[in-house]
Amino acid sequence: MAAYKAPLRDMRFVMNELFSGTTLHQLPGYEDMTPDVIDAVLEEAAKICEQVLHPINRSGDEEGCTYENGVVRTPKGFREAYQTFCDGGWTSIACKPEFGGQGMPKLVNSMVEEMICSSNLSFGMYPGLSHGAYVALEAYGADELKQQYLPKMVSGEWSGTMCLTEPHCGTDLGMIRTKAEPRGDGSYAITGTKIFISAGEHDLTENIIHLVLAKLPDAPEGAKGISLFLVPKFLPDADNTPGPRNGVMCGAIEHKMGIKASATCVMNFDGATGWLVGQPHKGMQAMFAMMNTERLAVGVQGLGLGEASYQGALAYAKDRIQGRSLTGTKNPEAKADPILVHPDVRRMLLTQKATMEGSRALVGWVAQALDLANHHPDPAVRQESEDLVALLTPIVKALLTDLGYEATNIGVQVYGGHGYIREWGMEQYIRDARIAQIYEGTNGIQALDLVGRKMPANAGRSLRRFFHPVAEYLEAKGDDDDMEEFVLPLAKAFTRLQQATGAVAQKGMVNRDEAGAAATDYLRLFGLTALAYLWCRTVDVARARLAEGANGDAAFYEAKIKTARFYMQRVLPQTGALFSCIMAGGASMMDFADHEF
Amino acid sequence: MAAYKAPLRDMRFVMNELFSGTTLHQLPGYEDMTPDVIDAVLEEAAKICEQVLHPINRSGDEEGCTYENGVVRTPKGFREAYQTFCDGGWTSIACKPEFGGQGMPKLVNSMVEEMICSSNLSFGMYPGLSHGAYVALEAYGADELKQQYLPKMVSGEWSGTMCLTEPHCGTDLGMIRTKAEPRGDGSYAITGTKIFISAGEHDLTENIIHLVLAKLPDAPEGAKGISLFLVPKFLPDADNTPGPRNGVMCGAIEHKMGIKASATCVMNFDGATGWLVGQPHKGMQAMFAMMNTERLAVGVQGLGLGEASYQGALAYAKDRIQGRSLTGTKNPEAKADPILVHPDVRRMLLTQKATMEGSRALVGWVAQALDLANHHPDPAVRQESEDLVALLTPIVKALLTDLGYEATNIGVQVYGGHGYIREWGMEQYIRDARIAQIYEGTNGIQALDLVGRKMPANAGRSLRRFFHPVAEYLEAKGDDDDMEEFVLPLAKAFTRLQQATGAVAQKGMVNRDEAGAAATDYLRLFGLTALAYLWCRTVDVARARLAEGANGDAAFYEAKIKTARFYMQRVLPQTGALFSCIMAGGASMMDFADHEF
Repeated sequence: MAAYKAPLRDMRFVMNELFSGTTLHQLPGYEDMTPDVIDAVLEEAAKICEQVLHPINRSGDEEGCTYENGVVRTPKGFREAYQTFCDGGWTSIACKPEFGGQGMPKLVNSMVEEMICSSNLSFGMYPGLSHGAYVALEAYGADELKQQYLPKMVSGEWSGTMCLTEPHCGTDLGMIRTKAEPRGDGSYAITGTKIFISAGEHDLTENIIHLVLAKLPDAPEGAKGISLFLVPKFLPDADNTPGPRNGVMCGAIEHKMGIKASATCVMNFDGATGWLVGQPHKGMQAMFAMMNTERLAVGVQGLGLGEASYQGALAYAKDRIQGRSLTGTKNPEAKADPILVHPDVRRMLLTQKATMEGSRALVGWVAQALDLANHHPDPAVRQESEDLVALLTPIVKALLTDLGYEATNIGVQVYGGHGYIREWGMEQYIRDARIAQIYEGTNGIQALDLVGRKMPANAGRSLRRFFHPVAEYLEAKGDDDDMEEFVLPLAKAFTRLQQATGAVAQKGMVNRDEAGAAATDYLRLFGLTALAYLWCRTVDVARARLAEGANGDAAFYEAKIKTARFYMQRVLPQTGALFSCIMAGGASMMDFADHEF
Repeated sequence: MAAYKAPLRDMRFVMNELFSGTTLHQLPGYEDMTPDVIDAVLEEAAKICEQVLHPINRSGDEEGCTYENGVVRTPKGFREAYQTFCDGGWTSIACKPEFGGQGMPKLVNSMVEEMICSSNLSFGMYPGLSHGAYVALEAYGADELKQQYLPKMVSGEWSGTMCLTEPHCGTDLGMIRTKAEPRGDGSYAITGTKIFISAGEHDLTENIIHLVLAKLPDAPEGAKGISLFLVPKFLPDADNTPGPRNGVMCGAIEHKMGIKASATCVMNFDGATGWLVGQPHKGMQAMFAMMNTERLAVGVQGLGLGEASYQGALAYAKDRIQGRSLTGTKNPEAKADPILVHPDVRRMLLTQKATMEGSRALVGWVAQALDLANHHPDPAVRQESEDLVALLTPIVKALLTDLGYEATNIGVQVYGGHGYIREWGMEQYIRDARIAQIYEGTNGIQALDLVGRKMPANAGRSLRRFFHPVAEYLEAKGDDDDMEEFVLPLAKAFTRLQQATGAVAQKGMVNRDEAGAAATDYLRLFGLTALAYLWCRTVDVARARLAEGANGDAAFYEAKIKTARFYMQRVLPQTGALFSCIMAGGASMMDFADHEF
């Protein structure tokens, strides 16, 4: 199995040099988050990921979870690893101090999340889903519920789930059939079947807290009639330890393409006792609080797996000797040259590197904006940052899971036949990454969210949070000849994005199918342009550092500049094709009669 | 599991309307191959694929092959299916009548191969590899060997393998270490270890005939010192039944991402008795006879799996109701509309349809050329056809496996979360398809073959076999206003291809790494342009048929025209991005020092 080393140098670059990690402690509430503290956190996170989670990633895939009579067992080593994880406080880092959390900035948490995803995505699903449930409960739960449940969820003693999907509905939650009957004592009887429930049942924690979407008897039709309920596996006793078993059982686990060590459960609720979270019929609101957090986290999954695959592929390309360089022997002592000499292998590796480092920068940008939105004293800054997060969330989710999946596929290709063999671990990254393009809203749904909700939101105000800084940047760099090779391609892509935005908005107003037909290509055009912008900003920083002497780290900054060049020349041109597809409109698909497919 | 129906209507279109299937019987040697005969063959093939092979595809994936003490067992049902397959004469259809074969045209055989790959790729590997061994032995074996072995391989009683790869070398076969010692009696003692040997050991046939690359004691260094040997599992008796066990054993089988019912074996040769096939040190020549056949067959694997995935996705998109059309309810009787109403779902399905039907046309073109190369009385036509096959072989292999893989991924996306669950069978297509981009020469190697060998071959003569007909077509259609929407995009892509060809040839002469850096993008640019040409020709036929009244089949021809339109507007624009990447040159990758990755 390929080794994994957390890319701490690049994480520090994104945090401290590209964004405001070094000044985080100047924000109210983050006073303790000095660069030294953050550095120590990242180093500890790297250790547990490299030494505890990564070593059970392959074995977890081989063994998978097992199901017997409602009981789910995680693979060998997962219980011990989870204990270590909780002992280290890793379930609590992004939670509020009032519930026992460490209140770490999102900028730090997102880097830790990436490491977890790189080293063992299946494992990461358990605390990841808990955190989603924490977010929804913390935002919408009544104080009493929060006091009772959140501290144990924060400590990791109890875990959480989000129970949304049913056999006949996923995207279209308005159709759910799970019922909630008021019992008159403030509690409700929940009855129905949920599927695809990650961490729905397992042996890592003493209790599991389900957040369940269900309909009250007087619920209006559709998505406006959905409420959210808290349903624990064991009803807590007076001293808040798990008491009697509640009426919720795991009926089966799914056999999946990947993330096999993550239990994906069918959950049967049979008059289970639950409590309302938030207002009646307003469950979608609470769900979206969780969902937005999860969407960013899923984008990070794509990044994490792509990074892991890149590391594996690079090590192999340096080690594997096969054939000779096209321009003459490079390694005369051996029978062949390492495959890293071949341009096509470099093309593959650099595609991984350029897209994954670009993705990390995008995550950093959004995470910084989240920190500003939550902690900046100026309400205008908070609003601006919130807008940017809302706009970029579907892009992070869809673009990064697509790029991450593409990167995992490249990793297998670099290995040749060996990549197809399970033992090497490279094909597992493909299988694990494939789900990220689907869950928490398919990437097609993300694209519709972007063109249908985020684009028109507040008369285009959200959109301007991206367009304005890029336009200003291009304006400022217009005369910088040294930057031309980077700025010109950005300007070209940005023009395409602006024109496409106008066209989609205009055509979509007349015919919403036109917006739908453009959505996926538009999201990718947007995302690749955003990465180009961040690569330009990266080059600015790298050039400044090199001019200052680079402090012994010149190779890192040189590599940044070269990777940016590769991105501009070899990745960004896709925007031209995307632009053509968008401008071609939707008629070529909508004109098909059903029988003509 | 999604149902599979052989796309016979489209196969007949490609064979009889787009190419010369209906006139095949006018070629010497194909006198019996009248359209009626061919039709009957395709219908029988469809039956066995749909009713015998497809039903054991999912179960074969779940069960996989098992290994114990040198014995390999195929999954339940494979032995019976193989018997039915042999009884139907399917192992023999593309073999020469003098060895018991049916001598069917390649045009027919390629359609049958597609059906086999769609319904059960793992199963198809066993007869597929046998056929590769048949081809090499038939072309290069001594008469005695051929008389002894070929009839039993043609009947399917014995199967064959190709033993090339060793643990330390795949692409670079010059490094192989397997030794062949002459015994003085005309036989050789073969010793060494081969890996990744498909069908190396199994329980389907009474004997297995290995074709093994090995080095004679006096072998020159590198690929010029490789010889090919025939090594049977059991040495045939005087009456040509399997006699004593030979010194070759299966040491293990690989655990793979997919094609799990195909046994991928480690084969240990320990002084095994073998006979030379062809001339000493000329084994690579014989290997390439097999390899070219296999490369086309692997391209067809991509097509077959993409087609199967399309069929599954289309059925689901018509059946699954979820959400409402963006332009208003289309299915008021139900709680939601089928997802086929959504433009983004149509975009996905039509990408599958346009690329798979285009791929089928490309396979038909090459298969027709092979038939002409083998049977046409005019040597000039034979030469031309051979050139075209040589040129298009790497494109069929790489482009069709890439497009096929992309199609299988789309199939999963259309299913949403259900696509990730093994039970539905959609994710198996991804896992099965992934290997086709790797084996029989990775797609990167195909691209190098195209730019490094095929492009310069015979001073560009091969290249002209494609460029001339396309240029003539564009010339002829220049004034046809009705065709403009198809011909103009083709002309644009073709211009890009011509310019890129000039640039790659020129830069590659100065610096071979420049050709290597462009190769993969160039191959795809070439392939997508070839598909655009075939889509134009398809529209010509469809329009002509519609003008004649279409004989009750108007919807089929209308759909062809619409699909061509989608291809031009939504797939072909990629050529612009590929062109930019090619023209950007290779410096952005070659300038990286090893430590800068």
